[in-house]
Amino acid sequence: MYWKGWQAFLPDSAILLIDCPDRPGLVAGISEFLYRHGANILHADQHQDNELGLFFMRVEWSLDGFDLDRDAFLLHFASLASQFGMRWRLEYSNDRPAVAVFVSRYLHCLVDLLHRHQIGELSCRIALIVSNHPDAERHAAFHGIPFSLQTVRADNKADAERRQMELLDAQGIELIVLARYMQVLSPGFVGRFRSRIINVHHSFLPAFSGAKPYHAAFERGVKLIGATSHYVTEVLDEGPIIEQDVDRVSHRDQVGDLIQKGRDLERVVLSRAVRWHLQHRILSYANKTVIFD
Amino acid sequence: MYWKGWQAFLPDSAILLIDCPDRPGLVAGISEFLYRHGANILHADQHQDNELGLFFMRVEWSLDGFDLDRDAFLLHFASLASQFGMRWRLEYSNDRPAVAVFVSRYLHCLVDLLHRHQIGELSCRIALIVSNHPDAERHAAFHGIPFSLQTVRADNKADAERRQMELLDAQGIELIVLARYMQVLSPGFVGRFRSRIINVHHSFLPAFSGAKPYHAAFERGVKLIGATSHYVTEVLDEGPIIEQDVDRVSHRDQVGDLIQKGRDLERVVLSRAVRWHLQHRILSYANKTVIFD
Amino acid sequence: MYWKGWQAFLPDSAILLIDCPDRPGLVAGISEFLYRHGANILHADQHQDNELGLFFMRVEWSLDGFDLDRDAFLLHFASLASQFGMRWRLEYSNDRPAVAVFVSRYLHCLVDLLHRHQIGELSCRIALIVSNHPDAERHAAFHGIPFSLQTVRADNKADAERRQMELLDAQGIELIVLARYMQVLSPGFVGRFRSRIINVHHSFLPAFSGAKPYHAAFERGVKLIGATSHYVTEVLDEGPIIEQDVDRVSHRDQVGDLIQKGRDLERVVLSRAVRWHLQHRILSYANKTVIFD
Amino acid sequence: MYWKGWQAFLPDSAILLIDCPDRPGLVAGISEFLYRHGANILHADQHQDNELGLFFMRVEWSLDGFDLDRDAFLLHFASLASQFGMRWRLEYSNDRPAVAVFVSRYLHCLVDLLHRHQIGELSCRIALIVSNHPDAERHAAFHGIPFSLQTVRADNKADAERRQMELLDAQGIELIVLARYMQVLSPGFVGRFRSRIINVHHSFLPAFSGAKPYHAAFERGVKLIGATSHYVTEVLDEGPIIEQDVDRVSHRDQVGDLIQKGRDLERVVLSRAVRWHLQHRILSYANKTVIFD
Repeated sequence: MYWKGWQAFLPDSAILLIDCPDRPGLVAGISEFLYRHGANILHADQHQDNELGLFFMRVEWSLDGFDLDRDAFLLHFASLASQFGMRWRLEYSNDRPAVAVFVSRYLHCLVDLLHRHQIGELSCRIALIVSNHPDAERHAAFHGIPFSLQTVRADNKADAERRQMELLDAQGIELIVLARYMQVLSPGFVGRFRSRIINVHHSFLPAFSGAKPYHAAFERGVKLIGATSHYVTEVLDEGPIIEQDVDRVSHRDQVGDLIQKGRDLERVVLSRAVRWHLQHRILSYANKTVIFD
Repeated sequence: MYWKGWQAFLPDSAILLIDCPDRPGLVAGISEFLYRHGANILHADQHQDNELGLFFMRVEWSLDGFDLDRDAFLLHFASLASQFGMRWRLEYSNDRPAVAVFVSRYLHCLVDLLHRHQIGELSCRIALIVSNHPDAERHAAFHGIPFSLQTVRADNKADAERRQMELLDAQGIELIVLARYMQVLSPGFVGRFRSRIINVHHSFLPAFSGAKPYHAAFERGVKLIGATSHYVTEVLDEGPIIEQDVDRVSHRDQVGDLIQKGRDLERVVLSRAVRWHLQHRILSYANKTVIFD
Repeated sequence: MYWKGWQAFLPDSAILLIDCPDRPGLVAGISEFLYRHGANILHADQHQDNELGLFFMRVEWSLDGFDLDRDAFLLHFASLASQFGMRWRLEYSNDRPAVAVFVSRYLHCLVDLLHRHQIGELSCRIALIVSNHPDAERHAAFHGIPFSLQTVRADNKADAERRQMELLDAQGIELIVLARYMQVLSPGFVGRFRSRIINVHHSFLPAFSGAKPYHAAFERGVKLIGATSHYVTEVLDEGPIIEQDVDRVSHRDQVGDLIQKGRDLERVVLSRAVRWHLQHRILSYANKTVIFD
Repeated sequence: MYWKGWQAFLPDSAILLIDCPDRPGLVAGISEFLYRHGANILHADQHQDNELGLFFMRVEWSLDGFDLDRDAFLLHFASLASQFGMRWRLEYSNDRPAVAVFVSRYLHCLVDLLHRHQIGELSCRIALIVSNHPDAERHAAFHGIPFSLQTVRADNKADAERRQMELLDAQGIELIVLARYMQVLSPGFVGRFRSRIINVHHSFLPAFSGAKPYHAAFERGVKLIGATSHYVTEVLDEGPIIEQDVDRVSHRDQVGDLIQKGRDLERVVLSRAVRWHLQHRILSYANKTVIFD
C-alpha cells in the first residue's frame, strides 16, 4: 500500500562497505571484480579523506546475474581485500536484522518507530522492547512485539544489564535503539555492541550535553533548539554524530514549549539514523560518521 | 507525566479574539474593560493590516479574579463591541471541543495526531474517526475512539456526506481534520463547517496543487519538497494557508523517497495547524491567516 | 528604487519600549495615555514572563496628530511610568543613529552591511570603520565613510582602546558592530557601551565558544554548523543571543567548506541583529533577548 | 588570506564528466583507464537513474603523475567513450573561465558575486558586466571589470542582443549569470548559450513563476517564501532547477518585508549555482540537474 522508498522496487541486492587506506587502483580493482562476477551496480558512493589518506566506499548491486553467494564472495574477495588492507562487510538488502528498542516514560520516539516499521520505512524486525517503566507495554502488545519490564536501580544495575544482555542474545539482536531511554549503559554493555547502539540526545550536541538540555537551552536563551542521534560510546553524549536537526524558538517559548518542539526533532533525527543504519549507509571513523547517499 | 506546554501550568483562562476596522482607542477600550473586570492578562497579541485598515487581537487572561461569566461577558462587552464594529468570540482554555478525523489509507497523520492527543499536545476530545477504508479501525479501537467506515463512491457521495453530517452532528463536532483524506468534500459540506475543516496537502502550495504532487515535484526536479496545512474552502487547495514546511531533496531521491520525506512534513504542518486552531490562535481574513503568538 | 520594508511607506513614527514588573492595568494605562494624546498606533507587541512576573512592550505610533513632542512626553508620561515602576525609552523612526563597524581581515560581513545600508535596509548612518588591518580602507572609501587603522598589540591595547573611544565619542557613536573583529574588548570598553555592542560568533553558541569554532565543529563531526549574533558582555561569547542560524554539512565538507558556508550564516545573523537593534525591536533581560515582531 | 575551500589546498586536478546509458563494466572501464595512466583520484561521485537506465559520473584526479595531457587524453579515451556511448567533457581545476554578469537595477546579487569572487569563492574571471541601467558602473569600476551599458527597448531588442553577443564573443565568455536581469532573452540568444546561462528567480518555482512573485506570494498568504536558481531555456522560468531555498514569513510581513528577506535567498541560491557550475559539479538531463557532491 505504502511506497517503501526505492528499495521496494529493486530486485534483491548486495551491499559492500569498504574502509581502507586510500591507494591508486582501489576503485579499478573493486569495480573490475564486481563486473567480472556479473554485478549490475545499482548505487555506488565513495568518500576520500584526503587529509588522513583514507578511502570509504558503499556499493550496491543486483543479485540477479551475480555469480557469487556469500561463501564464494568471501573466498574470492579475500585476496583483493588483503592486497589493499580493507576492512569490509557484505550485507544483503533482504535481510531483516533483529532490533531492540529501549525506552523509559517518554514514548513518542517508540510510537514513531513502531509506525514507521509498520508502513515499511525500516528494513528490520523489531524483536524486543525493553523498558524500566510499564507504560510502553500496551504499544508493544498492539504491534505484537515482546516486551520486557526491567526495573533499573542504583543497586541492581549490573544485574539488570546482565538480564538485558541475555534477552538480547536470545533474540539475536543486532541493533539497539535508545528511544529516550533514561538509563546510562555501562562501558561493558556498550563495548559489546560497539557501533550498534543508537541514541537520541535532546539537544544540538555538543551544546547542552548531559541532563535536562531543554532547561539549559531555555536558561541560555538560544534562538534554535536541536536534537542529535549518535552511536553510543563509553563517553556519554560524545559518540559519533549521525544526524542533527533544529527548530526555531523565541522568547515566547517556555521550557514546556521547547520540550514539545523538541519531540518532533527527536523523532526525525532518531528515525533517520535507524533507517540509514539498516540500509548500511553509515561508516564511522575518527569518532565521526560517513553517511553514504 | 509529559509537559503539556505552558497552558498546563496556568490557571483556567479565557481567550478573546477580535477582528474589526482599525480605529484609535480600540486597545485602550478593550484593556480598560478587562482591567475593570479584574482580568489578569497572561498573553496578548495584536496585528494591524495598515493597508486594509484592519485590527486583529487575541488576548488571554486568568479567570481567577475575573468577575464576569460567559453570560455576563456577553451582556457587558456588547456595547464596546458594537461601538467598534467588532466581530469577536470568547473561548475558554479548559474547553475540550469535539474533533473528528477523516482519513483514507495513509495513516501516518492519524497515528501522529492520536499520539499527540494522548500525551496532551492537543486540547480537544477526538470524538470520531471517519474513513472510507477499514485500516484505521484498529488504531481507533486502541485509543477507544468511535470509528465509522463510510465507503464513498461517485454514485453515493451525497448519501455518504449526509450520513457523515449526521454523525458529526450527533457528536457535536466542532473541528474536522482531513488527515490525508482522499475524497473531495462537496461545497455544501464545506459551507456547513466554514473555517472548521483543516486539510493537509502534500506539496508546498500553490506549487503542485491537485493530485499526485510528489510525482509532479519529481518530474519538475525541485530541490525542496513541502507540505501545507490549510482551511478547506469550496475551491480545492486554495483555502487560507495555516502552516508550511519543506525538506531538501536531491537528484538521488526518487518518487518513493519524496513520499517518505513528505510524510514527516505532513505530520508536522497538520499537527501544528490543529494545535493552533484548538488554542484559538488563528484568525482568517482575505483568504489568509493571522497566527497569534 | 529599492523597497525599504514597510517603514519606508509610513509616516514618521515614535516607538516606546517598556520593561517593568507585570501588574494589572498596565496595558490599559499605556494605551489610554497614547489614545488621549492622539496616537494612531501602527504596531504593538508585548511579552509577559509569567514566571518572573515581568512585562515588556513595544508600541509604535504615527506622529501625525500626536500632541506631545519629546519634552512634553517626558513630562506627561513620568507619573504613569513611576506608578508602574517602568524602565522605558522613547525612540523616533526617522532618527539615524551613528554606527561604527569594527573589522579585522575577513571583510564579508562589512561588505554585506555596507551594501545593506546603501539600499536602505539599515536605519542608521555608518559613521566610522575601525580596523586593525588596512584591507577595509578601500571599501570605506568606496562608501565615503571615515576609516581608522588601529593596530592593536598586547603591549598597546589600553592605548588603542583609549584612541578608539575618543573616535567613537567624536562621532557620537551609539552602536558598535563587531563584524568579525578579532580583538577581545576590555571590560572597561564593554561597560561603556552596554547593550550597544553587537558581535557575530562563527558557531552555534554555546557550542564551540572561543577560538577556531569551525575547526572544532569539524573535529566533532557535527552535521549542522551555525552562527550567532549577540550583545557583548564582559564574559566572552556569553552575552544575550539575538539571532542564530544553521546550515547542513556532511562528511564531505572540510574545514574550508565549513568556513565558506559559515560566511553566509554570519552575514545573515549579524545583519538581522543590527537591523532589529536599529528598529528598536530588542530588549534584553536575564541575559536573554526579547525580539518584538 | 581566506580559506578557499578544499580546492585551494589540492594540486592541480582534472575533472571528467560523463553521461551515458548505464551498462555493466562502465565504472570498471573508467577507473581502470585512469589507474593505468597514473591518476590519483581525489573525488568521485556517480549517479544512476535506474528508471531511465542512465549513468552519470564526475571524477576528479590529481595531475601530478598523470601521464596524459589534453590532446593525449582525447586520443586515448576515445575508444572507451565510444564503446559505452558516452557524452563527456574534461575540465581542469586551474582554468578560470570568463564569466559575464547581466544586471538591471537591483544590485545585491551583483555585489555579492563580486565580493565572493574577490575572496576566492568563485573559480573564474568576471570579464564583463552588462546592464540596461547605469547604476552598476561604480561597482564594476571598483573591481576593475569592463562595464557595458546596453539599453534594451521593445524596438531595439534584436540590435541590443546582437551587440551583447559581440561583446560576449570578444571576451570569450563561457558563462552568463543573470543577477536579477529584468529582460527576457530571445530563444536565439538562449540557444547559443545552452546550459551556460544561470538565472535567479525570486520565488520557489514552480510557484509564482512570471512577474512580481513576491506580490503574488503576499496575495496568496504563503508561510514560506523562496528563491530558485536555474539554467535558462527557451521557456521562461521552466529551465532545470539548480538550487532553491526558503525563509519563513508571517502575517506581519508586508510585500516590502518579503522583498527584503528574498534578497538574502536570491544571493545564496544564485551564488551556489554559479560556484557549482564553475566546479563542474552540475549535469543536466530531462530538464533536471544532477549536482555532484
